[in-house]
Amino acid sequence: MFATNLPVGQLYFPSWERYEDGMRSIFEREYYTNHGPVVQELEARLEDLLGTRNAVTVSNATVGLYLVAKALGLAGKVMVPAFTFIATAQAMSWAGLDLVFCDVDPDTHQISSLTADRALEGDVTAAVGVNLWGGSCDPSSLEAWAQQRNCELFFDSAQAFGCATEKGPIGRFGRAEVFSFHATKIVSATEGGCIATDDDDLAERIRNMRSNYGIRDARTVPLIINARMSEGQAAVALMSLDDVDRNRSHNERLQRVYRDGLAGLPGFKIVDPASVITTNGQYLVCEVEIDEFGLSRDALLRVLKSEGVSARRYCFPGVHRSMPYSTTHPQYRETLRSTDAICAKVLQLPVGSRVSADDAARVAELLRDAHAQAPAIRSALRTGGSGAVVPTDRRQAL
Amino acid sequence: MFATNLPVGQLYFPSWERYEDGMRSIFEREYYTNHGPVVQELEARLEDLLGTRNAVTVSNATVGLYLVAKALGLAGKVMVPAFTFIATAQAMSWAGLDLVFCDVDPDTHQISSLTADRALEGDVTAAVGVNLWGGSCDPSSLEAWAQQRNCELFFDSAQAFGCATEKGPIGRFGRAEVFSFHATKIVSATEGGCIATDDDDLAERIRNMRSNYGIRDARTVPLIINARMSEGQAAVALMSLDDVDRNRSHNERLQRVYRDGLAGLPGFKIVDPASVITTNGQYLVCEVEIDEFGLSRDALLRVLKSEGVSARRYCFPGVHRSMPYSTTHPQYRETLRSTDAICAKVLQLPVGSRVSADDAARVAELLRDAHAQAPAIRSALRTGGSGAVVPTDRRQAL
Repeated sequence: MFATNLPVGQLYFPSWERYEDGMRSIFEREYYTNHGPVVQELEARLEDLLGTRNAVTVSNATVGLYLVAKALGLAGKVMVPAFTFIATAQAMSWAGLDLVFCDVDPDTHQISSLTADRALEGDVTAAVGVNLWGGSCDPSSLEAWAQQRNCELFFDSAQAFGCATEKGPIGRFGRAEVFSFHATKIVSATEGGCIATDDDDLAERIRNMRSNYGIRDARTVPLIINARMSEGQAAVALMSLDDVDRNRSHNERLQRVYRDGLAGLPGFKIVDPASVITTNGQYLVCEVEIDEFGLSRDALLRVLKSEGVSARRYCFPGVHRSMPYSTTHPQYRETLRSTDAICAKVLQLPVGSRVSADDAARVAELLRDAHAQAPAIRSALRTGGSGAVVPTDRRQAL
Repeated sequence: MFATNLPVGQLYFPSWERYEDGMRSIFEREYYTNHGPVVQELEARLEDLLGTRNAVTVSNATVGLYLVAKALGLAGKVMVPAFTFIATAQAMSWAGLDLVFCDVDPDTHQISSLTADRALEGDVTAAVGVNLWGGSCDPSSLEAWAQQRNCELFFDSAQAFGCATEKGPIGRFGRAEVFSFHATKIVSATEGGCIATDDDDLAERIRNMRSNYGIRDARTVPLIINARMSEGQAAVALMSLDDVDRNRSHNERLQRVYRDGLAGLPGFKIVDPASVITTNGQYLVCEVEIDEFGLSRDALLRVLKSEGVSARRYCFPGVHRSMPYSTTHPQYRETLRSTDAICAKVLQLPVGSRVSADDAARVAELLRDAHAQAPAIRSALRTGGSGAVVPTDRRQAL
């Protein structure tokens, strides 16, 4: 159906003209990195947008999570949900912390005070709340939980830039929140991220640890590394911020097209972004129920792929079933029921800059066709076929 | 003398036309990061140029050194020279290793088998050779030393891209060598670096640790992080590689102008790049002997600065006198005589893309004037003046 693959992920880039404008001014200034004026402008603008006292840019969100854990001086065990992008856990392992995995809510896919409480062990010193899918884990309820349990709390908000709950924008909760500006995110620096916090001392420790460029006051810190963002990366992030509302609107339009096109399709459910009044619309998350839909999630992925639709199964398998945790933490094999259940049926459909409303409508139609032809597809897949839905002659006409 | 500051550091950037060409092709491809075709092309080209089986790109050289230490599975104590850019030591601390500082040769400024041997403690498991100043520490002699002492050995070659010893190009020694592609280096990705090694298994462990993108074979590794280089960074590095010979020739020309202009200047010595048959010419390293020159190194730096010459004192103070090591390793305060002596007199003069032969000649002339007017400058500096050498009226005419 699609000649070039239709991807999941924002993959926004400014027009060449604007990019040229931003890059030429860096060329003219001949200042390319080491906390230059563009990085400083980006940090000021992020602070303004998020309403936090500090936004510290970093080279990516994984090192950002690492820096927060180190700057908080954490030791011992930290809780993370097993249903998350694996870097959440990897960053904590990197920081020398042992992991306690908690389950997530089966409806929202998010960690909650309830799922956290069920997994709580006596010596957990911190918890990482993860705001998934352009939604949130209801961070203020997790704050109350952490305060009661005497746990440090910070957030992996890699997917949540531009989202807000009733209690305020994502970025203002816990000790700190970490955003990703990876190319797949709604704000892109190609590679990059930032740490938002109202805690000036924590921010200053992180700035000292990130490298000596950009520190305001010297602090004694456990280590100094290089996690700087270059001027060119920051320039792309600034252009991306200019267009964040337009990109969000585009995503919301795609979401409406998908919802209209998929309404009532048996065994196919769209998961709403949880606990937010504003979403970035960056993920269209679905669940496929094999019995009602007629195909398994993985069979459906093969069908979509054969038609040029690169749907994904992000966060599959659960972190507790991924290396090295499947070996180092075998105790979680049977206990994280919601994570395992979600992992068996979740998929994400293409949203973002490279997807048009017409594309979304055609993907929805393709999904309807796949359901209608499910028995034939099952049989084709059994005999080694691709499970393609669109006949070859029609494909050539596209 | 100079209206805009004359910097130390290569600070090369391609012409706008070439940059546009490279970036437009990334725009057209719409693939921005995650081990894309440009990063793969860069790695292949680096392998070819260095003559190593593997060149693994990373987001900066500090994380590169960290990854090598982790991939080698090092524990305990690692030896580093006290006279180096502090990131050499910081990367080892980051990897959880304790530091043993060794002195350097007073003439070459480099670690040697002799200075390493003097500092050797029984439980040192590894040594980091540092190739400073576009020269080398004679890596093959250090290899022989490490083999005898049963030490792992790898190299911080952040400053040594494009250099070669009689035994071959820098990049092929020890277990691995780490290059920096920071904006100040002869090959620039603005931020970036690479790890060169002939050890396929070590390279594969590092690829696995750098992120799941770009791995060839899965390996069980102690951790997975994000140390990826983006496509845009790799594109700049490729353009920079195209021009590395031209930039080297330019540096060599500047070096000749400086040498001619400074020949015979009392108390002012140029330090030759050590133990190389090819240098990248990236640093013009000098020593100022206060008694003969008539001014201290720091007084001379003030004079140069007041005339718009941003000469530097890189690697000052010694790592053993920098935080946190001055506190955590007080035993080195009195023992590293050569490092301390070099730190008291070393300075680097501007070389690189933003310096012309005429600039270099004028800086040399300025240094001669500073020596000639040393008594007057000393007195001016004592009374709070800038120690400017060029009279105001002459400066306005420049």
